[in-house]
Amino acid sequence: MSEEKENIQFQLTNELIEQVELLVETQNDKELQKLLKEFHYADIAEILDELNLEEAVYVIKLLDSEKTSDVLTELDEDNREKILKNLSAKEIAEEIEELDTDDAADLIAELPEERQQEVISKIEDEEHKAEITELLTYDEDTAGGLMAKELVKVYETWTVAGCLRRIRGQAKEVTRVHSIYVVDKQEKLIGRLSLKDLIVAKSDKKIADIYISNVDYVKVNEDVEDVAKVMAKYDLEAIPVVDENQILLGRITIDDIVDVLKEEADKDYQLAAGITQDVEADDSILELTKARLPWLVLGLFGGLGSVFIMKDYEHIMDTVPSLFFYTPLIAAMAGNVGVQSSAIIVQGLANDIVKGSLLNRLLKEVGLSLINGFALALLVILFGLIIGQDSLESLAIAVSMMSVIVVAALVGTFVPIILDKRGIDPAIATGPFITTSNDILGIYLFFVLAGLIIGF
Amino acid sequence: MSEEKENIQFQLTNELIEQVELLVETQNDKELQKLLKEFHYADIAEILDELNLEEAVYVIKLLDSEKTSDVLTELDEDNREKILKNLSAKEIAEEIEELDTDDAADLIAELPEERQQEVISKIEDEEHKAEITELLTYDEDTAGGLMAKELVKVYETWTVAGCLRRIRGQAKEVTRVHSIYVVDKQEKLIGRLSLKDLIVAKSDKKIADIYISNVDYVKVNEDVEDVAKVMAKYDLEAIPVVDENQILLGRITIDDIVDVLKEEADKDYQLAAGITQDVEADDSILELTKARLPWLVLGLFGGLGSVFIMKDYEHIMDTVPSLFFYTPLIAAMAGNVGVQSSAIIVQGLANDIVKGSLLNRLLKEVGLSLINGFALALLVILFGLIIGQDSLESLAIAVSMMSVIVVAALVGTFVPIILDKRGIDPAIATGPFITTSNDILGIYLFFVLAGLIIGF
Repeated sequence: MSEEKENIQFQLTNELIEQVELLVETQNDKELQKLLKEFHYADIAEILDELNLEEAVYVIKLLDSEKTSDVLTELDEDNREKILKNLSAKEIAEEIEELDTDDAADLIAELPEERQQEVISKIEDEEHKAEITELLTYDEDTAGGLMAKELVKVYETWTVAGCLRRIRGQAKEVTRVHSIYVVDKQEKLIGRLSLKDLIVAKSDKKIADIYISNVDYVKVNEDVEDVAKVMAKYDLEAIPVVDENQILLGRITIDDIVDVLKEEADKDYQLAAGITQDVEADDSILELTKARLPWLVLGLFGGLGSVFIMKDYEHIMDTVPSLFFYTPLIAAMAGNVGVQSSAIIVQGLANDIVKGSLLNRLLKEVGLSLINGFALALLVILFGLIIGQDSLESLAIAVSMMSVIVVAALVGTFVPIILDKRGIDPAIATGPFITTSNDILGIYLFFVLAGLIIGF
Repeated sequence: MSEEKENIQFQLTNELIEQVELLVETQNDKELQKLLKEFHYADIAEILDELNLEEAVYVIKLLDSEKTSDVLTELDEDNREKILKNLSAKEIAEEIEELDTDDAADLIAELPEERQQEVISKIEDEEHKAEITELLTYDEDTAGGLMAKELVKVYETWTVAGCLRRIRGQAKEVTRVHSIYVVDKQEKLIGRLSLKDLIVAKSDKKIADIYISNVDYVKVNEDVEDVAKVMAKYDLEAIPVVDENQILLGRITIDDIVDVLKEEADKDYQLAAGITQDVEADDSILELTKARLPWLVLGLFGGLGSVFIMKDYEHIMDTVPSLFFYTPLIAAMAGNVGVQSSAIIVQGLANDIVKGSLLNRLLKEVGLSLINGFALALLVILFGLIIGQDSLESLAIAVSMMSVIVVAALVGTFVPIILDKRGIDPAIATGPFITTSNDILGIYLFFVLAGLIIGF
C-alpha cells in the first residue's frame, strides 16, 4: 500500500536523494516518474530542496503540473525563486492554473514586478485569472491577502435538494468544504450551513428556513494576526471574508492560520535572540550576517558605553578594585532580569492578558524583583564572606546589585508596554535592545550606588 | 443580529464586567442569562476570568451545563481549578456529559487523583464514561492523549445510500465532520472518504468502490509534537489515530494542534528568556519567582565565576587597567553571539532543517563568526584610536574579542545539537545557560589571549 510512504514515516535519506540524482543524471524519466508518484508533494519538495538547481528544474518540468504546482508552494522560498527563474512565463502559468487562488496569488506575488503581468496574461482560465488579479490587490498582511476565492456559496432562496445538486458542482473545485456560506440576492453574507446540516435536513426545505444566521466573519482589511487570534479563540476551521458592505469575498482556512502562527512565533523568537529578517540555519553566510551583525553592533556600542563609565571610576581602582571584578556579573543580572520581564510582557500582550492599571503592574514588578534581588544579594554577601572580602564592599555590591535588578525589571516591563501603545511590535524589545540598555544603565547605577555606600 | 456580538469586535470592557458583577450581586438571574446568552463561550470565559471566585461560581451554576461546559474548557487553568473545587462531583459530571471526549478527559485529568474516580462514577452515559476512561490511560504528550473518540466511521461493505443514512446519526455527535474513516470488518483503518465524495457518488455504489485507500494516520503512542509536524506539513485538518494493529481508535483535529503549536512556541520563547514553567504575566509573584529565580541564580554563579577569574589578574590592574573596562563588553558579545547561534540551531532542529555534516556546519559557523568578529574588531580599534588608547592594547582587545566571538558561536551551535542528539530539549540551551557559560569562558579567554599579545 502507498500508505506507508505517505505516512509519518517519510524520511529524507541520503540514499533517496542519491537515487533521484542518479535517475536525473541518466535521464531515466520513466523510473523517476514511478518513484516520485509514490510521494506526497510536501515530501517531493523536501527532496527537491536537496538537489542542485538544474536537477530540481529537470524534475519540475518532468512531472505533471497538477503535482508540481503543489510542490512549488512547499519549496524553500530561495529555491522556489531560483526554479521559477528557470521556467518560462507559459510554464509558470500552467502551474498557476492548477493552484487554488490564494496559493496562486502568493506565488505570483513573489515574482519580479515585470514578470507578474507576463505570467498573468498567459493564464487561460479567465475566471481564475480575474480572481488572482483581485487577490493581488490586497496587502499580504490582511485577511484579503490570505483568503482564497474558492468557497461553497448558496442563496437563501434555494431548496435543500436544489442546493445539494448545485453545490456538487461548486464543491469539486474546493479542496475541503468547511462551511457553506449563505448569501442574499445582493451577495451579502447572511449565514452559514455545514454539509452535515444539509444532509440531515429534509430535501424540500428552503435554505432560508435552516441556515444559521450566527456567522463569524472578518473584514477584508483586517490584520492577519487578528484573524489568527479570532480563529484560534473560537476554534474555527474556516472564516468568511467580507467587504465593507458585507459582500462575501472569500474565505480563510485554518491551515493558512497555522502558517501565520508559526511565522509569527519564529519571528518573535528570532527578535528575542537578536536576529532580524527571516533567516534559517541553512541560509548563506551573507544573509546570516545581515540578520545578525546589526544587533551585535548595537551590543558593541553598549559595551563601549560601559568602557566610558568605568574609565570615569579609574581613580578608585587602587582602593576598591573588587568593584571592577563584579561588573560582568552586574551586566549579566541586569540583562537577564530585563529579558525575563520583557518576555513575559511580550507574551502577555500577544495573548491579550496584560490587563489592569499600569500602577498595579509597576507594584507587582517591583515586588517580584525585590524578592529575587534580595535572594541574590544574600548569595553575594555569602560569597563575599567565603572569599574574605571587606564586608562594607560586599554590602555595597549586594545592595547596588539589588537596585540594578529592580530598575532592570522595570525597564524590561515598561519598554514593551510603551512600544505596544505606540503601535510598534513589542517583540523588538526583548532582545539585545533591552540587554544593552540595561547593561549600561546597570553598570552606571552600580558605581553610583556603591560610591554612596562606600564613600568615594 | 447576534452576529455583532460574536464577531471579532468582542471587547472585554470594564463596563461589561461591572454590569455582570452588578447582576450577580443583585441576583438578577433573568437579566444575567439574557446578557450572557448573546456571547460565545470563549468570550464568557474571558469575562469569568475577571470576576472573583464566588461570582464566577455563581455564573457557572446559573447557566446551562451545555454552555458552561465549554466555558470551563476555555478558562485560565488556575481559575478553572478553583471553580471546580467549588462544584460537587455530580455537578462536574454534568458538565463532562456535555463535552467531547477529549475535552472531558483533559478536564478530569486536571482534578486531584481522589476526585477523578468520584466524578467518573457520576457520569450517566455509559459509552461516554468508557471512552473517557480509555482516553485517561494515554500519556498527555502522545497522540492518544490528544485524540477524541468522536468520529464518523463506515464499513467498506456499506452502500453510499446506507452510509448516508447511518452517518446522519453518527454525525450529530461529531461537531465537525472532516473525514469519514473507512474500516474493514476487524475495525482496521483502510481508507477515508469526505462528505463531499459521498454526496458526489451514486447512491447504489459500495463504499469499497469509492473510498480512498491513501490515508495518513498516526500511532496512538506518537509524540504530539510529531503529530503537529505531520499535520502542518501535509495541511491536514484531522488525522485518525490507530493502535499497533491498525485498529481505528480516535481522531485528532487541527484546532488541538493549533493549541499544541502555541504552547510549544510559548515554552521555547520562555526558555530562551530564562523562564521555566508555564507562567503568565498575570500569575502570582510566588509563581513568577519560582519560574525566574533559578535562572538568575545560575547567572549569578556565572558572574561570581568571572569575579574569580578577574581576581587572578588583579596584578595587571596598574599596568593595563583598560582590559578591565572591556569585560562587560566581552561578556555581552559572547552572550549575544551565543544566543544568536543557538536560537538559529534550535529553530532549525524544530523544523528539521539542520542537515548535512557537522564539519560543514562547523566551518560555516566559524566563517560567519569570523566575518562578524572582524567587523566588530575594526570598530573596537577605531574606538581605541578615538579615545587615544595604547594601540597594542587596542589590538589585543580587538583580537581577543574576535576569538571570543568565534568560540561563543561554536558553543552556541554545538551545545543544542549535542543536547538534541541526547534526547534533551535543545531549547533549554538558548537562554541563560549559553549566556552564562559564554560569559565565563569569554572573560577567561579574553585575559589569556590579551596576556599573550601584550605580554603579562
